[in-house]
Amino acid sequence: MANALIYLDPDSPLSLQSQIRQRVVEGIIGGAFPAGSRLPSSRKLAQQLGVARNTVVLAYEQLTGEGFIETRERSGVYVRDNILRDRVGATDRPQGAAAPDAGWRRKLRLRTQSAPGFHVPRNWQLHPFPFIEGYFDASLYPTAQWREASRLALGTRIVEDGAMNEGSADDPALIEEIRTKMLPRRGIAASADEILITAGEQNALYLLTRLLADASTLVAVEEPGNPRLRQLLRQAGAELHYQSVDAGGMVIDEDLAQAQVVCVTPSHQVPTAVTMNKARREALLAVAARHDQVIIEDDFDTEHNYLGSPHPALRGMDRENRVAYVSGLPRMLSPGLRIGFIVAAPALIHEARKLRQMVVGRPSLLTQRTAALFLSLGHYDAALTRLHKVLGKRWDALRQALNHYHRETEITLPTRGGTSLWVRAPDHVSVDQLVDQAARRGILIEPDSHYYGRGGGSRNFYRLGVTSLREERIREGVNQLERLVRELTGDQLVRIDPADPGLLDSDDLRQALAGSLIHYRTFYTDPCTIELHPDGRMVGRSGHADEDCDEGRWWVEDGLYCRQWSRWSYGEEGRYQVTVHDNVIRWWRPGGRLVDSAVLERSS
Amino acid sequence: MANALIYLDPDSPLSLQSQIRQRVVEGIIGGAFPAGSRLPSSRKLAQQLGVARNTVVLAYEQLTGEGFIETRERSGVYVRDNILRDRVGATDRPQGAAAPDAGWRRKLRLRTQSAPGFHVPRNWQLHPFPFIEGYFDASLYPTAQWREASRLALGTRIVEDGAMNEGSADDPALIEEIRTKMLPRRGIAASADEILITAGEQNALYLLTRLLADASTLVAVEEPGNPRLRQLLRQAGAELHYQSVDAGGMVIDEDLAQAQVVCVTPSHQVPTAVTMNKARREALLAVAARHDQVIIEDDFDTEHNYLGSPHPALRGMDRENRVAYVSGLPRMLSPGLRIGFIVAAPALIHEARKLRQMVVGRPSLLTQRTAALFLSLGHYDAALTRLHKVLGKRWDALRQALNHYHRETEITLPTRGGTSLWVRAPDHVSVDQLVDQAARRGILIEPDSHYYGRGGGSRNFYRLGVTSLREERIREGVNQLERLVRELTGDQLVRIDPADPGLLDSDDLRQALAGSLIHYRTFYTDPCTIELHPDGRMVGRSGHADEDCDEGRWWVEDGLYCRQWSRWSYGEEGRYQVTVHDNVIRWWRPGGRLVDSAVLERSS
Repeated sequence: MANALIYLDPDSPLSLQSQIRQRVVEGIIGGAFPAGSRLPSSRKLAQQLGVARNTVVLAYEQLTGEGFIETRERSGVYVRDNILRDRVGATDRPQGAAAPDAGWRRKLRLRTQSAPGFHVPRNWQLHPFPFIEGYFDASLYPTAQWREASRLALGTRIVEDGAMNEGSADDPALIEEIRTKMLPRRGIAASADEILITAGEQNALYLLTRLLADASTLVAVEEPGNPRLRQLLRQAGAELHYQSVDAGGMVIDEDLAQAQVVCVTPSHQVPTAVTMNKARREALLAVAARHDQVIIEDDFDTEHNYLGSPHPALRGMDRENRVAYVSGLPRMLSPGLRIGFIVAAPALIHEARKLRQMVVGRPSLLTQRTAALFLSLGHYDAALTRLHKVLGKRWDALRQALNHYHRETEITLPTRGGTSLWVRAPDHVSVDQLVDQAARRGILIEPDSHYYGRGGGSRNFYRLGVTSLREERIREGVNQLERLVRELTGDQLVRIDPADPGLLDSDDLRQALAGSLIHYRTFYTDPCTIELHPDGRMVGRSGHADEDCDEGRWWVEDGLYCRQWSRWSYGEEGRYQVTVHDNVIRWWRPGGRLVDSAVLERSS
Repeated sequence: MANALIYLDPDSPLSLQSQIRQRVVEGIIGGAFPAGSRLPSSRKLAQQLGVARNTVVLAYEQLTGEGFIETRERSGVYVRDNILRDRVGATDRPQGAAAPDAGWRRKLRLRTQSAPGFHVPRNWQLHPFPFIEGYFDASLYPTAQWREASRLALGTRIVEDGAMNEGSADDPALIEEIRTKMLPRRGIAASADEILITAGEQNALYLLTRLLADASTLVAVEEPGNPRLRQLLRQAGAELHYQSVDAGGMVIDEDLAQAQVVCVTPSHQVPTAVTMNKARREALLAVAARHDQVIIEDDFDTEHNYLGSPHPALRGMDRENRVAYVSGLPRMLSPGLRIGFIVAAPALIHEARKLRQMVVGRPSLLTQRTAALFLSLGHYDAALTRLHKVLGKRWDALRQALNHYHRETEITLPTRGGTSLWVRAPDHVSVDQLVDQAARRGILIEPDSHYYGRGGGSRNFYRLGVTSLREERIREGVNQLERLVRELTGDQLVRIDPADPGLLDSDDLRQALAGSLIHYRTFYTDPCTIELHPDGRMVGRSGHADEDCDEGRWWVEDGLYCRQWSRWSYGEEGRYQVTVHDNVIRWWRPGGRLVDSAVLERSS
């Protein structure tokens, strides 16, 4: 019987020895191997499992050392008699939903509203096309580096260093790494007494909102903005003032004057990902000074600003110590890590530390030391470099795919690049409907609705993100999403008028196109010009400084305009019907759906 | 120059390769190796450092892969040009105390009282005699086991399992381990929807006090009791009702009736370490049912109840779902771990989860999975077994030392054994004074004062704990502490009346003692009898069932009574002057200070 309970899982990450040991322990604790019962001999068990006898012997030795089993002279291996002495029998109390409720709801003194929002399915990684911003596919996780850091953190000298201490002092090694490696990237000079480690960024925001907001406080927040922040402020009892956001970030005007606290995400606005420009930053600090306001700066996701040179954080420009700065280790790590930090005036840090001790205590010193080593070993810088490389490629793939498949509706891009962009759903389709339909086909996209605090504020946009989707999947994901959009909007599509198609035939085509220039704009509104040379060569120039060029061939065949780029449109051949009215040229799929249109400049 | 910055630390836990890599990264980030500057060749650096060339080559390869450096054909190794592109220069903002304050104090909407209490010096491990309960010397930390668990937790498949998910669902593996391995020890049967993982026990208590107490709530707490719990309840605005504690645990009487919430530590009362008896537990549940009360049970430190068979937790006896149970992984792990949990009715768990998400978010899934593996590998059971073995030995050493050195004042012991006991400071010495004086001699002890919520409640007791002190140090620590006590109380000592010493001479001694019985009680009030046989043999029996016996020799020499046990009193020879009045025998140190007294039963 005992033997049957000991089996090995070839796919287990555990060594054979560990597996044997684990099965025996489970058997003992589960009661399958009662105290005093005899276990199979190492020889017998080794045979049965088909492992080296020594593997079993070592597992048994470990179990003996740990007091689970004992070897009796000339008799065999036995489960120790008093092994379960300190366990008491479980009761038969009804559990779970079945259990009596004792009217808890009546007894609650505090009710928490669930954070509004979009809920990503727990099994998102099993979906073929998860375009979910802020989720990271495992390939991005620096497993080996983190493992090295945690192995070192567990080095005895470090454990002796204080992992056993209670107290409120953070790991000086981590403070120093943040001070000297992370904050300089953000233009922030800080001393140790201006930094507090928190159990993640959410915890940092909780502490600050509790400390700085109550029923007597008016707090300015971005609209659209972070729903979790609004939830925290409402729980603190604060009144919210909504400040709109445009391409320059949060709008700075005299409406701000009434607020005592201003919450802002300048480097990578949530959710639009626009970066607040320098003028706005200076204006914001000026308003804050004039009205003696406090600013909570969430430096969210700044590590994804990899285009152009980054702005310094507000905290870095803050001469008056009005800014409380919140950040954390790269988001890619955060779900597994939960290390955030606040940088602010010592007086505020002092209060935040006391509150932190009550709320959650000091974040694990082992985790703090692990993070410190991760930084000091340069893994942080290396991880960012790698992240930017990978995400940059995915970003290009997304732009290329949209250029190839997307038509008509507006798209807004982050100002400093990033990992996601927003697409307007077609007029006649609600974004929530689109999100549902897409999910049924394994395409996960996020609607904009939950980012609006005043309700009903949705602009009917959805987000396409690339943090959770590998490069090679992006094209097909966009293709299938656009196909879905076309199905949902089928009847709104422009089609050739069957009564008067007005298609050019082969001869007209050659005559109209040979030596002509075609002008249009990419979906991201870069100008693009294509030269069709009489000899069949084709040259394309795109971007304000022609930064993106390509060459290809064009020809006419059976009344169809055919073209093939070497890079653009994935280097694939395209065959279209063509109409020209005045100087507007239109391409149609054989069958009649409009593909695109442009301005045709005839050759003189 | 560059070379000077690359050096190796023979004591570093890092490999040579990692150290080289780390130095180079620090040099680049610190600006010592400017972008584009040339690094020493691997050959040169290897020579200079006296390491194998391949070590340097591998470090350089890693750095190249990570984008820090690049090799240029026929030229050498260089720092990459754009390596610091995404860093902005730090500002010259005045920092720390020097910085302007922006009147933060005025702006604070919430002030936190620091937890009252005794502050253990951060360098406590450098003190020769830290008798600090609840701090653990590094020898008790299961470093290797924890390292194994965290290594496995970082196995990619587990990372893919969801470490990258946001969300509020805890690691099912950890829930299952707690459900099946930890809770049965406590007599608790729970379903998954009755368990919430928290960021440590403090965080669990914070969530429950916020949910169940506000200005309209009267909460009964133990007196003496946990100061941090009182702090949490006051912050929630609750009114406190103090319920006294005796040898049976918290007193249960009709005073409890007024409270809506009762907070209790039944298995190991904080701070007295007494265990609440079964009758009290049933009485408490009955009162709670009668008055529809909620009970918060902190199952603090239960793993240290290793004497006798443990009581089940209140939650295990609770038929009406009134008990919210708080516990965590063994305290020995907690400073480095911060994993606690709540077991309660699903309705309450549901609310606690929503609040947890706001306050701190879900505790790190990597840490959760590491803890799950730590449990599933049986390391938890093994660690407890080992802990009990080690702490049990230390406990005996403490009792033996006190028996040998301690005189006069009262001592209270935990009812279920444990890791600490309380000693009354001599009447004329305030415990705080004693604590200060002792600390100056490297002896750390804790006063009882901060456990009393009504203020001034100190009974002038101090605690001696053995979790932080190795067995071999205990005797000397107690010895030096008792010496200090004697110095502080010098003048109160009983001394022989020089006018009329009434010492027995050798002949009287032999006559009085040969064949007599000596009866007394040990400091922990076990009866003890010593037979002095005429032939010089000596037999001692101690304990209510003579469970502790020893043999030895006694003799008389130069008017001194001499004795030597084989085990008792560390088997050391003792020489005393003796007086006998009526049937009371007193031993005096040569010089005249009273050592001890007992009842002498003359041989018939």
